[in-house]
Amino acid sequence: MKTILSGVQPSGTQHLGNYFGAMRQNIALSNDPNYEAYIFLADMHALTTVKDPAMLKKMSTDLMLDYLALGLDPEKTTFFQQSAVSAHTELAWILACLTPHGLLERAHSWKDALAKGVKDTTAGLFTYPVLMTADILLYKPDLVPVGKDQKQHLEIARDIAMKFNNQYGETFPLPEEYTPKEVAVVPGTDGQKMSKSYGNTIEFFAPENVLKKQVMGIVTDSTPVEDPKDPEKCNVFQIFKLFLDENEQKELADRYKNGGLGYGDAKKMLLERILDYFGPYRKKRVELEGNLDYINSVINSGNEKANQRALKTLEEVKKAVGLI
Amino acid sequence: MKTILSGVQPSGTQHLGNYFGAMRQNIALSNDPNYEAYIFLADMHALTTVKDPAMLKKMSTDLMLDYLALGLDPEKTTFFQQSAVSAHTELAWILACLTPHGLLERAHSWKDALAKGVKDTTAGLFTYPVLMTADILLYKPDLVPVGKDQKQHLEIARDIAMKFNNQYGETFPLPEEYTPKEVAVVPGTDGQKMSKSYGNTIEFFAPENVLKKQVMGIVTDSTPVEDPKDPEKCNVFQIFKLFLDENEQKELADRYKNGGLGYGDAKKMLLERILDYFGPYRKKRVELEGNLDYINSVINSGNEKANQRALKTLEEVKKAVGLI
Repeated sequence: MKTILSGVQPSGTQHLGNYFGAMRQNIALSNDPNYEAYIFLADMHALTTVKDPAMLKKMSTDLMLDYLALGLDPEKTTFFQQSAVSAHTELAWILACLTPHGLLERAHSWKDALAKGVKDTTAGLFTYPVLMTADILLYKPDLVPVGKDQKQHLEIARDIAMKFNNQYGETFPLPEEYTPKEVAVVPGTDGQKMSKSYGNTIEFFAPENVLKKQVMGIVTDSTPVEDPKDPEKCNVFQIFKLFLDENEQKELADRYKNGGLGYGDAKKMLLERILDYFGPYRKKRVELEGNLDYINSVINSGNEKANQRALKTLEEVKKAVGLI
Repeated sequence: MKTILSGVQPSGTQHLGNYFGAMRQNIALSNDPNYEAYIFLADMHALTTVKDPAMLKKMSTDLMLDYLALGLDPEKTTFFQQSAVSAHTELAWILACLTPHGLLERAHSWKDALAKGVKDTTAGLFTYPVLMTADILLYKPDLVPVGKDQKQHLEIARDIAMKFNNQYGETFPLPEEYTPKEVAVVPGTDGQKMSKSYGNTIEFFAPENVLKKQVMGIVTDSTPVEDPKDPEKCNVFQIFKLFLDENEQKELADRYKNGGLGYGDAKKMLLERILDYFGPYRKKRVELEGNLDYINSVINSGNEKANQRALKTLEEVKKAVGLI
């Protein structure tokens, strides 16, 4: 059975971009009998950007609720909190002592931060590829799912693993990149990539009135109801597509092309579909919100399982480098 | 009772420079009833330079033996291993997320490494002032003894502590610098500062024949035996002084000035004095070498005590930043 590891960073209310871009695949993997999955809440990484303790706490709890509501099975998957497994930072330090400073200077994430003039260029932001490497190597996964933005991070992880193996003997298998079959590009309500920073999100766990406002706010052109419309140029259609199989897509595209379907009606249909699709998850989430003791017990047991596995690797590493 | 914290880095066989520069003061502090002392073996820091696991392991054990042989009282002092207390790297990461990258770029230790063209400019070397800050703040010491080279590190620690307190509320008292009354400058056998890298050391725990060779190899000029000599210009006298009280210093200085004392004889007297001074410690060390189980039990109990204290601070910090 192959081991797969995925980190998810608390970042506030989840939107369709998060869901179709990563969450859906993570949940599918976590329930796939062919994989042993580790999924962790990257709360230590979140500290590089979130400085408000109440917000961090809330975002972490929310993300746990989101994943469990969406169907992650904690019996099958080790679902845990990064900060509850001290071996992450311990291994990160040991790896930092092998990681060339220049490798971090060349990391896209760092260069982007400098280019964008990010104010908070901290040591944490600079070294976070090292912590990410430790996150991965601790569990010796065969596969790591990565989005386009993170390809370089997995390369860095492999680089550092090789350096360690060369210096101290074969310890870490080199993790391979896992690319899910279909990684959806999710447009936001304004047609740009859906992203919190653009304010163009559709938040599937938001209260119904908020969700409605977001869907009804999708930007469309001013083609009259009765005119034919090009589905490929319509933000409503592009988002709707994510929920439709091929036949359904074709059917809806035909209605666009034939004319007579107004954007307002298309949006209402989309809203209905979203509520339909996420309905059971939304219900489950409300239940879970009322049962935080259960959430805590799930995470505690995940933390314990993760610690066991991580400490085994850490002990091996400490022996290899001469700390024990 | 004031808390005082000191880190000692495994670095191989100890010499008179280490002893009179730091070890003697650390041991005095550790036995002083006015202080609660924490002394840790900085083995995680050693990883920035030591890549040979057997050597690191040996150097760590040696340093434990050295300190216990020299009279550190583990009942009174918490004597522990940095790598056995995971909270050091955990806190280091949390602090790294508050530490400006530029602060580390301006650290003398980093600038020196770049200036000297050090090959191994790793992320560990770059961020080690952050780990050092965590080492300190975890134990909330009132005082930290620092050598001249480390003054800036304590300033950095205070800077980061202030940043944390400003961001998350009063958590860390600002540690003060402790300057021992007399910090001896210890010349090496060639008159330069005694340092392993200059190959001019006198190793007080070395086998007698090695020690003798080191003392007899002290560089002197060619003034004939019968001529008066200037003690201030003599390396033998400068080292000898460290073992002498004022009267004894004057007496020896007079013998130099009167002539008739050859350098060879002065060296023999010095060797005798060193063996005299370190005799009981050398004997104790041999005993301890034969009882590594005791050494391990001492360190294990120190590690446990340190963990208790450190975890208390870490919990407070995790709450403050929103991780728990």
